[in-house]
Amino acid sequence: MVETLEWTDAGVVMIDQTRLPRETVFVTCKDYREVAQAIKDMIIRGAPAIGVAAAMGIAIGVQKEDPSKFDEICETLGKTRPTAVNLFWGIERMRKLYASLAGQPLDVVRKRMIEEAQAVKDEDIACCKAIGRFGADLVPDGKIVLTHCNAGALATAGYGTALGVIRGAVEQGKKIAVYADETRPFLQGSRLTAWELQQDGIDVTIITDNMAGHFLKSGNIGCVVVGADRIAANGDVANKIGTYSVAVLAKENNVPFYVAAPISTLDLAIPDGDHIPIEERSSQEVTEIKGVHIAPEGLAARHPGFDVTPNRYVHAIITERGVARAPYTESLAALAKG
Amino acid sequence: MVETLEWTDAGVVMIDQTRLPRETVFVTCKDYREVAQAIKDMIIRGAPAIGVAAAMGIAIGVQKEDPSKFDEICETLGKTRPTAVNLFWGIERMRKLYASLAGQPLDVVRKRMIEEAQAVKDEDIACCKAIGRFGADLVPDGKIVLTHCNAGALATAGYGTALGVIRGAVEQGKKIAVYADETRPFLQGSRLTAWELQQDGIDVTIITDNMAGHFLKSGNIGCVVVGADRIAANGDVANKIGTYSVAVLAKENNVPFYVAAPISTLDLAIPDGDHIPIEERSSQEVTEIKGVHIAPEGLAARHPGFDVTPNRYVHAIITERGVARAPYTESLAALAKG
Repeated sequence: MVETLEWTDAGVVMIDQTRLPRETVFVTCKDYREVAQAIKDMIIRGAPAIGVAAAMGIAIGVQKEDPSKFDEICETLGKTRPTAVNLFWGIERMRKLYASLAGQPLDVVRKRMIEEAQAVKDEDIACCKAIGRFGADLVPDGKIVLTHCNAGALATAGYGTALGVIRGAVEQGKKIAVYADETRPFLQGSRLTAWELQQDGIDVTIITDNMAGHFLKSGNIGCVVVGADRIAANGDVANKIGTYSVAVLAKENNVPFYVAAPISTLDLAIPDGDHIPIEERSSQEVTEIKGVHIAPEGLAARHPGFDVTPNRYVHAIITERGVARAPYTESLAALAKG
Repeated sequence: MVETLEWTDAGVVMIDQTRLPRETVFVTCKDYREVAQAIKDMIIRGAPAIGVAAAMGIAIGVQKEDPSKFDEICETLGKTRPTAVNLFWGIERMRKLYASLAGQPLDVVRKRMIEEAQAVKDEDIACCKAIGRFGADLVPDGKIVLTHCNAGALATAGYGTALGVIRGAVEQGKKIAVYADETRPFLQGSRLTAWELQQDGIDVTIITDNMAGHFLKSGNIGCVVVGADRIAANGDVANKIGTYSVAVLAKENNVPFYVAAPISTLDLAIPDGDHIPIEERSSQEVTEIKGVHIAPEGLAARHPGFDVTPNRYVHAIITERGVARAPYTESLAALAKG
């Protein structure tokens, strides 16, 4: 498996997720502004991966900029994408460390910030593996697992959250196949999820988003597993647009709907999903596919990047500290305390 | 509005729906085999339009082929697409007329077959206008109407079924806007529905299929209107893949879900939707968009062209003879009797 992102002396190296699977191209972000732009342009995407990228962005900023610029570095990275809370979590973690290093020599501060960004990355992979172990038990053997978007190695520092659960189930010896929603408009499912599962030799089939209901009704799907961009205190889940639809269709057909996410995705400061800001992205991403125009000239399109799945559709939330079930206000608070 | 299909001395002229909206190209089918191929390749699509095309295909076959070939002509056209019952309805209607003309001079038979195909077309437009009038009353004023696929002028001989209802509501002076699901993989929504509503000056916005649930939850959508490819005796509805999902999401959010279709779409010979054959189309239509590869090489994809919406999700079925409501076994049978 290629690395999603990596700290190098030359800068933060990322695989360009806008060009996969046809081209495997790496981008080197040499300063914090380039990291911010890469997040904004979705060269790197996926809530946990964005958190790691933000931490590395701050680390690189601290290496190259004057200490007076620290707040500006954090603000620039914080303005890239509004929905995934891991971005703010990553920034906050680096900000706290930075504050604790006040008075230390600059070279010590710089070294510690690199180490912390590396730790954020390493911990993310460890979180994903723990999520995979907890989640694997929930996956029914001999059935299809449906997933939406890409909550895989590419959405994290490695291994993945939803795809971590799938990898965990496969490692347990379960005989499963995966149906991946293609996930318009950015096609994270057909481009990224399909690609990384294919590389792992896991049986994967692409479907268009509007087929999910049909297959959930068929009785062949054992469970749905998705990632999350932000989870409110009551267990409402913001995730890639279309997740809410899959959750409703799963419930209607008595198929368990699981959310897999690290604790860093919890936002216990907000009571429910109505408080999660939903990014509205460019309509061009809807009216064009990979540069090919598919709509009449001058046509309006909407592009909310995320939706909110109310907690009543969520069977369980799988974290690195265990599995939370309803009532989520209690179970998530308990997990967050550690 | 351009004509969907037209009988001319040179053959059956169709607008090529695979190339809209970027190119307005017309195809002339000079014999029945070319008509069959055009249906198979979705140069013409939409259940009512396919019914008219089949009638014209038989009419052109009768002009050019030996009378001994009649059954072969009907069979070739009948093998093009399995789900839309209008195809078989159109063939059956032409077959009955042909049988009734036994013993007539060949030139009389040929002339009558052309007249009948023309009548099928004219009646289809009249049906759509009646559907539009009945349906318009059901559309809430001042709200958005959501539609899936293209059940418009392009899916019929003109005016449309679901889009006929929308046109009817606009003609009544209702202030509505339309959200059109793009309808992967063939993109009938963003390419065809958006195009024809834009031409009519009706306010239309494209969304990806996976956004429908999010917007249905928002409270801004007043109703959903879709077409149908086949309706069973109990009111189960086969329509373009994704329709079932929209229906479930509409019900979950208390938004009325309407099906607009001519009586020729009823198949009262089958008790329920489980008996409707669902066409599985090429997976390439999923892994490529307009010739651009979007998935890794060698990846599997599924492509059921249609799904079945159980009658419990259907608020009403709007036909040219009036509006049927549950229990559909009674209401549809009554409408079918005329």
